[in-house]
Amino acid sequence: MRGFGMIAVDQVGWLEHARPQCGPLDAIVRPTMVAPCTSDVRVSHGWAGQRSDIVLGHEAVGVVDEVGALVTAFKPGDLVAVPCVTPDWLSPGVQHARRVSHDRGEQASYKFASAKDGVMAEYFHVNHADANLAPIPDGVAPEAALMAVDMMPTALRGAEVAEVGFGETVVVIGIGPVGLLAIAGAVLRGAGQVIAVGTRRASQSVALQYGASEVVSYRDGRLSDLILARTGGAGADKAIVAGGDAATLADAVRLVRPGGIVSNINFFGESEVLQLPVVDWGLGMADIDIRGSFCPGGGEMVASMLQLIVHGRIDPTRIITHRLHGWDALPEAFRLMDQKPDDLIKPVVILD
Amino acid sequence: MRGFGMIAVDQVGWLEHARPQCGPLDAIVRPTMVAPCTSDVRVSHGWAGQRSDIVLGHEAVGVVDEVGALVTAFKPGDLVAVPCVTPDWLSPGVQHARRVSHDRGEQASYKFASAKDGVMAEYFHVNHADANLAPIPDGVAPEAALMAVDMMPTALRGAEVAEVGFGETVVVIGIGPVGLLAIAGAVLRGAGQVIAVGTRRASQSVALQYGASEVVSYRDGRLSDLILARTGGAGADKAIVAGGDAATLADAVRLVRPGGIVSNINFFGESEVLQLPVVDWGLGMADIDIRGSFCPGGGEMVASMLQLIVHGRIDPTRIITHRLHGWDALPEAFRLMDQKPDDLIKPVVILD
Amino acid sequence: MRGFGMIAVDQVGWLEHARPQCGPLDAIVRPTMVAPCTSDVRVSHGWAGQRSDIVLGHEAVGVVDEVGALVTAFKPGDLVAVPCVTPDWLSPGVQHARRVSHDRGEQASYKFASAKDGVMAEYFHVNHADANLAPIPDGVAPEAALMAVDMMPTALRGAEVAEVGFGETVVVIGIGPVGLLAIAGAVLRGAGQVIAVGTRRASQSVALQYGASEVVSYRDGRLSDLILARTGGAGADKAIVAGGDAATLADAVRLVRPGGIVSNINFFGESEVLQLPVVDWGLGMADIDIRGSFCPGGGEMVASMLQLIVHGRIDPTRIITHRLHGWDALPEAFRLMDQKPDDLIKPVVILD
Amino acid sequence: MRGFGMIAVDQVGWLEHARPQCGPLDAIVRPTMVAPCTSDVRVSHGWAGQRSDIVLGHEAVGVVDEVGALVTAFKPGDLVAVPCVTPDWLSPGVQHARRVSHDRGEQASYKFASAKDGVMAEYFHVNHADANLAPIPDGVAPEAALMAVDMMPTALRGAEVAEVGFGETVVVIGIGPVGLLAIAGAVLRGAGQVIAVGTRRASQSVALQYGASEVVSYRDGRLSDLILARTGGAGADKAIVAGGDAATLADAVRLVRPGGIVSNINFFGESEVLQLPVVDWGLGMADIDIRGSFCPGGGEMVASMLQLIVHGRIDPTRIITHRLHGWDALPEAFRLMDQKPDDLIKPVVILD
Repeated sequence: MRGFGMIAVDQVGWLEHARPQCGPLDAIVRPTMVAPCTSDVRVSHGWAGQRSDIVLGHEAVGVVDEVGALVTAFKPGDLVAVPCVTPDWLSPGVQHARRVSHDRGEQASYKFASAKDGVMAEYFHVNHADANLAPIPDGVAPEAALMAVDMMPTALRGAEVAEVGFGETVVVIGIGPVGLLAIAGAVLRGAGQVIAVGTRRASQSVALQYGASEVVSYRDGRLSDLILARTGGAGADKAIVAGGDAATLADAVRLVRPGGIVSNINFFGESEVLQLPVVDWGLGMADIDIRGSFCPGGGEMVASMLQLIVHGRIDPTRIITHRLHGWDALPEAFRLMDQKPDDLIKPVVILD
Repeated sequence: MRGFGMIAVDQVGWLEHARPQCGPLDAIVRPTMVAPCTSDVRVSHGWAGQRSDIVLGHEAVGVVDEVGALVTAFKPGDLVAVPCVTPDWLSPGVQHARRVSHDRGEQASYKFASAKDGVMAEYFHVNHADANLAPIPDGVAPEAALMAVDMMPTALRGAEVAEVGFGETVVVIGIGPVGLLAIAGAVLRGAGQVIAVGTRRASQSVALQYGASEVVSYRDGRLSDLILARTGGAGADKAIVAGGDAATLADAVRLVRPGGIVSNINFFGESEVLQLPVVDWGLGMADIDIRGSFCPGGGEMVASMLQLIVHGRIDPTRIITHRLHGWDALPEAFRLMDQKPDDLIKPVVILD
Repeated sequence: MRGFGMIAVDQVGWLEHARPQCGPLDAIVRPTMVAPCTSDVRVSHGWAGQRSDIVLGHEAVGVVDEVGALVTAFKPGDLVAVPCVTPDWLSPGVQHARRVSHDRGEQASYKFASAKDGVMAEYFHVNHADANLAPIPDGVAPEAALMAVDMMPTALRGAEVAEVGFGETVVVIGIGPVGLLAIAGAVLRGAGQVIAVGTRRASQSVALQYGASEVVSYRDGRLSDLILARTGGAGADKAIVAGGDAATLADAVRLVRPGGIVSNINFFGESEVLQLPVVDWGLGMADIDIRGSFCPGGGEMVASMLQLIVHGRIDPTRIITHRLHGWDALPEAFRLMDQKPDDLIKPVVILD
Repeated sequence: MRGFGMIAVDQVGWLEHARPQCGPLDAIVRPTMVAPCTSDVRVSHGWAGQRSDIVLGHEAVGVVDEVGALVTAFKPGDLVAVPCVTPDWLSPGVQHARRVSHDRGEQASYKFASAKDGVMAEYFHVNHADANLAPIPDGVAPEAALMAVDMMPTALRGAEVAEVGFGETVVVIGIGPVGLLAIAGAVLRGAGQVIAVGTRRASQSVALQYGASEVVSYRDGRLSDLILARTGGAGADKAIVAGGDAATLADAVRLVRPGGIVSNINFFGESEVLQLPVVDWGLGMADIDIRGSFCPGGGEMVASMLQLIVHGRIDPTRIITHRLHGWDALPEAFRLMDQKPDDLIKPVVILD
């Protein structure tokens, strides 16, 4: 079968792989819509180490094609959303609240395009299907459901880990697709003032739609100065880091007040060196936390995202700027994500 | 000075009291807008025991008239919102997160119309003014600020104590002013489906505006059956009890699923007998919590509510159905709250 | 194969059942030591409804006899402790922190002597073996491990749900085996004063060994009065209910101060009527929670209990007062648990 | 009056200052026992910036000498323990759980030897006395109470912030006085295996007494290797950093497993550069938190520590290795803390 993937570092293209085998707990899914993710791009450039000959992609909705003998909740023909993180629910890790995404090791619950082929192929494999698939409820558009498998849970997890409280001031750094949804997530956790940080015009407009009080840009000055000026000198209660480079984390520590939480949902590269500004971190005693979380996994997590969509709490499709059609559009969608033209936030590819 | 209050149980009217004294940490405030609360009415009927010759009222915004010698953050002329719960911040209780509203004893942080005269007088007394007053930010209408001193914090506390999570199903029982804002609060904590329970027409419409997915009525059948039918047989994740009688708490226990939380913000009367349905409570082993919380207090709490208003996260004035003018309208406002005509949700009295 | 169980309500005895089948994810375990539990006794008397022809027992350590084709972490011959609660880790419930013990319905993760035969048989069945078995580490005596499958996790969960904080005053009501370990659990969560409530002489001595500051008895007076007298009139911060009857829950609500938590780990009977004393519960506004939790499940939970034993943090064998030998002693052990002679706390039966 | 303090950076000695003034909410306390702290030493060397002519010291028990007109809970002659962190309880900061130690700014609740003279003088000033003093209960030795004002709360806060759970593996890095008590704190939160990291002989013995499973030294190899070897390759669940240098934080990140928490209670210097090892931090996505907390403050916090002592849960005096007598011994005690001879853990000076 055909799959789009990583031939080697910095080289993507079509691969011809065997259709995956379906174990007794598994499902084989035929994707009907997929989306490339910035992390696919980064992985393709070697940010997570050397990989080769592996199908990329971890965001998909599709149709169940085959289920293992022990699968009871799903059957061929079911329309499903597939979380990008699919824990092994029989592993020890999932029994610890903070390790669900790390079932048998760091990020080990993330299997697509890592431990096995990803979703950008004619068929892909889902482990522990009963626990890792989510039916798409009536009235949820496929492209909305597609945003519920990685973009929304990563973003909303950022707001959750930041422990956003009623009326708090939250800075969201980075207004790519995840950052934009993190703005919505902060609002959905009860934030008051939400300051978005980003420069791209297309994103700025969506940031305001999702409830940002205003958008500032790095180009306007030093970030911590910008935030102090907008918070009466107090600083923010919380910062969600959803983009940026090695310097961004230090910026975030600088702009939160004592007691603040910096919630990172950004994917740093192996070669980056992160520094903690010791004075801004209160010499280690400012009750400022630096937390880095990973997308939660499992079918129930996706189901809870879908409930937010069903009940109109959030419209995740506002981040979709490009809709491409057919398998042959996959390389173009990937190229877009890699080169990020001005008008792009998130592309999706409708396969079916 | 003139004050409206409780002459004896079941008897309200005008009282002539001395203007309160201002201690060194205190402020004297001249109210410009007040609102009667259901709990004022209940107290007047003896629900919280015998009281007499006491000014009623605990919801006010106003102008600082005098401050004590040690007050530094406020001065005469400042426009302030006054939390209905004003803790003694030098007490031991406030140093324990769960006892802030119980500074030196049960509900002892609640002082208006309890330990001293309430706010429905020409002047009223605020203890620990630096910590218990909140400036009203530019752009917040006085009547919106007035909703931030009791209605909003009580309601939002209900959602907070219920630990509403992303996409969860929440039932809000009772759609008086607090229940309505609890719907908004549940949505602001990320609820998915929100089912409101109530019968009054005026409230049902506001419930939907605040984000209720639908409104059901006790008249439609047994509450737990109604909820099961609307949740695919699963029951709700959380229930917020914001009204009802002694039977309501049991209803709430019945309609939540295992792991659920019943968050009570209703004021039960001394004579009510609450029963816990032992089978529905899983014989004590269903991981269902029954929590009863009190309005949090302090100026920062009000400030956080005001931030939600400033940034457009909630419009609490949707619950205001009646606006009366002048001191002489106070008895009528109180009568309205007592008799609850069909079109009434919350009355306010503009004094100034 | 032979099993000891419930022939009908109020009638226990030997049953002859087929050896259980081992599905692909399962294990068949041969018990080497078992312990009857008060809840076995209560179930046998119909507290949880009509049951018949079912093997009783849910506390066992043993040797793996057979594993299913998909089991990877265990093999025949392994010495294991088996949690009394064995969730279906592929169910939706386990993906919600508060519903792990309620996988597909209320208490549905509890399967022994409920959905299937219990452990008091020559062989018993364990679902999802990889996730539900725990190896017994070197140096842990089998009888200590046996206490880690139900007694310890239930008791320690009681302390955890009570959110015991450093230096807090905790009352533990009921000093049967679970109550005694709840004392140890409160101490292990940092409690200061711990007041145990119970009358039986054998238990009182163990209560003090586990760190109770003192033991009081219902016979000494009204419980809330006894506690007020021992806490300078303040009441307790937390109460753990590990025994008693329908009146006990109300007692617990009475003796905690505002902000308190009543953590129930007692098994009430279907026919009991629980009342919430409305004034003592602060008319619903005292920030007093009533929480009822169920034993957590899974192999990792047992593993964490075993770590406490390995590192000498707790010696759960202090509650074992009777050690019986051989299969034929099972009925006698069960009779002891039912009749509770003065010197009995917890009996175990060494089968092997 | 005489006080021992910082004449300039790197220069300590006797100062002659006026007896502090007692405002209406304040108390003046005459210390009867004080202890120098490593942070006094560090401050004296300029770690927290330039200071001069300021009395040092923030750990004291003493006798109330004078109280302000509005103080009600204490009177001259009362024996009190004084928290090293004394928040302004009328400030906004204390109304936020995470900002209590930062009342009006970063670490601003810490006032001794910072915003004003410290406790190593004949008399010292305590703000908001009703809220910031703690009576010493009968049966608590003064030197035990002295350990409850900074050493214990800092250390136990480290364990609390680490969210130590039952049976977890905790590494405590640094076995000075705070690190040693953090070992006890981890045990008091239910830790299983506790690995202490430190080299000094005197401390190693106390570490084991407080419940460390074993002590390892940096000299034995790379710290993360040492920990992996002792945890079956898994790494620790939590790390408490209570000592070390700029490299220590990175070590701590390396040795915890995914989902881990690094809880810093160490005081880094202004000139240190902290680096976050990006791969070990899981490229920002390992659910590993880095938290830095400050000693909590207030009389109730000290009271809760004292309850642990009263009920025998901890004996903090095990860290006291040197007891000096009289005012003239203060410089020697300070010198000991600065030079840390092999047999020193914590010195105290008995003044009275």
